[in-house]
Amino acid sequence: MGSQGDAKNGGEENMAAWLVAVNTLKIQPFELPSLGPHDVRVRMKAVGICGSDVHYLKTLRCAHFVVEEPMVIGHECAGIIEEIGSEVTHLVPGDRVALEPGISCWRCSYCKQGSYNLCPEMKFFATPPVHGSLANQVVHPADLCFKLPDDISLEEGAMCEPLSVGVHACRRANVGPETNVLIMGAGPIGLVALLAARAFGAPRVVIVDVDEFRLSVAKDLGASETVQVSTKAEVLKPAFSPTLMGLG
Amino acid sequence: MGSQGDAKNGGEENMAAWLVAVNTLKIQPFELPSLGPHDVRVRMKAVGICGSDVHYLKTLRCAHFVVEEPMVIGHECAGIIEEIGSEVTHLVPGDRVALEPGISCWRCSYCKQGSYNLCPEMKFFATPPVHGSLANQVVHPADLCFKLPDDISLEEGAMCEPLSVGVHACRRANVGPETNVLIMGAGPIGLVALLAARAFGAPRVVIVDVDEFRLSVAKDLGASETVQVSTKAEVLKPAFSPTLMGLG
Amino acid sequence: MGSQGDAKNGGEENMAAWLVAVNTLKIQPFELPSLGPHDVRVRMKAVGICGSDVHYLKTLRCAHFVVEEPMVIGHECAGIIEEIGSEVTHLVPGDRVALEPGISCWRCSYCKQGSYNLCPEMKFFATPPVHGSLANQVVHPADLCFKLPDDISLEEGAMCEPLSVGVHACRRANVGPETNVLIMGAGPIGLVALLAARAFGAPRVVIVDVDEFRLSVAKDLGASETVQVSTKAEVLKPAFSPTLMGLG
Amino acid sequence: MGSQGDAKNGGEENMAAWLVAVNTLKIQPFELPSLGPHDVRVRMKAVGICGSDVHYLKTLRCAHFVVEEPMVIGHECAGIIEEIGSEVTHLVPGDRVALEPGISCWRCSYCKQGSYNLCPEMKFFATPPVHGSLANQVVHPADLCFKLPDDISLEEGAMCEPLSVGVHACRRANVGPETNVLIMGAGPIGLVALLAARAFGAPRVVIVDVDEFRLSVAKDLGASETVQVSTKAEVLKPAFSPTLMGLG
Repeated sequence: MGSQGDAKNGGEENMAAWLVAVNTLKIQPFELPSLGPHDVRVRMKAVGICGSDVHYLKTLRCAHFVVEEPMVIGHECAGIIEEIGSEVTHLVPGDRVALEPGISCWRCSYCKQGSYNLCPEMKFFATPPVHGSLANQVVHPADLCFKLPDDISLEEGAMCEPLSVGVHACRRANVGPETNVLIMGAGPIGLVALLAARAFGAPRVVIVDVDEFRLSVAKDLGASETVQVSTKAEVLKPAFSPTLMGLG
Repeated sequence: MGSQGDAKNGGEENMAAWLVAVNTLKIQPFELPSLGPHDVRVRMKAVGICGSDVHYLKTLRCAHFVVEEPMVIGHECAGIIEEIGSEVTHLVPGDRVALEPGISCWRCSYCKQGSYNLCPEMKFFATPPVHGSLANQVVHPADLCFKLPDDISLEEGAMCEPLSVGVHACRRANVGPETNVLIMGAGPIGLVALLAARAFGAPRVVIVDVDEFRLSVAKDLGASETVQVSTKAEVLKPAFSPTLMGLG
Repeated sequence: MGSQGDAKNGGEENMAAWLVAVNTLKIQPFELPSLGPHDVRVRMKAVGICGSDVHYLKTLRCAHFVVEEPMVIGHECAGIIEEIGSEVTHLVPGDRVALEPGISCWRCSYCKQGSYNLCPEMKFFATPPVHGSLANQVVHPADLCFKLPDDISLEEGAMCEPLSVGVHACRRANVGPETNVLIMGAGPIGLVALLAARAFGAPRVVIVDVDEFRLSVAKDLGASETVQVSTKAEVLKPAFSPTLMGLG
Repeated sequence: MGSQGDAKNGGEENMAAWLVAVNTLKIQPFELPSLGPHDVRVRMKAVGICGSDVHYLKTLRCAHFVVEEPMVIGHECAGIIEEIGSEVTHLVPGDRVALEPGISCWRCSYCKQGSYNLCPEMKFFATPPVHGSLANQVVHPADLCFKLPDDISLEEGAMCEPLSVGVHACRRANVGPETNVLIMGAGPIGLVALLAARAFGAPRVVIVDVDEFRLSVAKDLGASETVQVSTKAEVLKPAFSPTLMGLG
């Protein structure tokens, strides 16, 4: 990487975690794109490991997405602004930010109607063939970088992305103080849904899983009730269903 | 009161607090109507004193309502079921209940559209010429009596009526975890609105009053910020307005 | 029927069409209840024959309702007010009215929330054990009688009940000038749904049936397109599905 | 203009109507920007004259916008695609299109929430300092060009922009077959609101103006009633108010 690369990267060679084969990550140079007028360059400080990252690592695929070329993984992330584009006014170098990982097209009807999360042309960190953010630095649209309050850590900032899934679910379900909530699964997404449901005022949140430890975490995070189900067929027997039937 | 009255009142003469003149309440017999098939007879255990009761006591009027005949006051109330009508199935004697104080017509378009609180023919406890509930016993429609959970006291039950004002306000304003709330006035209704807004998940509730003590109660109940305003004209000066401008 | 019956029926013996056995209707006396303060007595002038009436006639049942005692049938109806209860103010004798056929309880949560059509205690004309309106006269709550404009005939008034099904469907589906509509079935209810959808501004209404004549009626009433399907299994072949796929 | 300009304009010098001073339009060359990958080049065929164009012509200002440099006017327009950018897939040269005149930023919260019409950074045809479309050709984002059906003329296409104001008003007011509508003013925008309200199913649309001719046009376009008001103070007298009071 020559002097141009040095200049745009702040004089250092940018490195990233490349998924090159099943179960094989390599730390390799990751050249940054040039900084557009509405972009920022962010030094990554915290990147979560999503279930999708694990799927890609183990199988090179997740849902219908397939890794066909080496790809930088990671998309739950927060960092510190190093450089801002010429038109950026709401951020300055040094700002601690959480990154929204998807860049939508803003031309389709979903984008125009406020449902840009459904954009069929979404370019999303670590969704092939788009590189992710498990890198020293990334260049990203400034409007997708959200300044963190002083009392939110960068690790917490990296968790804004999964948390937003729980918030979105509660918005769609219109959760409020008159809603009882049943959450199927106490993995990370189930747990952020639990946190969101409580913040939306849900008076009763019941959560279900096969794993006792996950349910104990859910209990610690405020679940009203936990239900452990078997992984065997008799899970369908109605032993505990009266409890669940009471949910509105 | 003869044997008929004895029978329907459980063998006692029912007494109530009658407003008979300005600042003059008298404890006098209050004959109960006969118990209809969908009614219940309730022994009152707790009755709040609303600002409207105070208005009637001091001036014999409240808003455009005028007390022209002696009237039993009181409408924020809870009690214990003593007798149920022949068609009542969801309550039994001994149940502790909060009473919804207004009987609407169920024939007008408001009632039919689910806004029965706006019924122009509403018969509301202690709104002349309708008698209130500051009595030993009242007869009331069973569907307006709500069984209290074991951990809710009768005094708390009597506060369901004012609390419902706060809940209704938060429903109408669609308060949630993304709503900042400004409450003008920290009297009882302002305080129940505060409690409701917090239960609805509002992250920031600012409350305004002229009275320092009321604001200290609001603070204890969880107000994010309190603003004491003067009763004098300079209240309109912008000294604290930047804070308020921040509310969304 | 004695003098009491004469008095309340205006001096005549009220007659009705009683369903007494499969395929057996008899014109027999039908004693009217006494007129309550909020009731009206209506002389029936037009009564539609609903599919449910036909089901009861042929099988003594419809859905889970079973005719176990002789029952007056009919519920799509309009007539002329003959007498009003003491508290009725919005109608006078001589008014031409359409009748809403269901009397709900006004005590359950459905009724209170404005969905009284879902009341589990609904008393609905000609739904056993409730008698219907195919009678010379009926007594009915005044608030369920709607005065007809001068340019609406009594026969049209009787069709308000089925038409309201189409209106309700369009309200629930939020039909408007940006909605394409597909109606499955061109029977009476499909046709009123078509009329309602057009009135709601739907730019394209496609209707499907197995019967060519019904579809021709739909075409006359303004269907954008009609689709005749076979009653045989090959209906599932995709021959015409591209057209249907275009519906939004 | 050199060979490059020739190339991008299809070998001709592009001309436009420049507003250069009060009441002074000049036909002058208007250099087109280069065609981006998501842009199209459109040959203008019909451009409406909006009230704002007239304001700019007569006073060089409209609301708080001031013409400080010569500006091409016009924004209600339709034309024929001459060239498409490399990434455009839904249009081809020869397509007849209506143009949406405002380019929003897609970075602010309004844009992201589906209210991009409120974008504070909107670049709107003929709103200084942005040039308009009263030109032989314009370059415009392809996603803001809407292909016209064969039975819609280019002149009608140019009217899509004002018509959309009426559609937006009816959407916001939730106009439907149960809404009566009162329109204040029978100018072009009042008339498109009338057309939209009828398409949305409004059963009664009353329109008010001071001008008899405009009201006669409104009547021809389907207004249920027209109300001519005086331009003098007695307009506030209640002579015609009973009619208006009936609006719901």
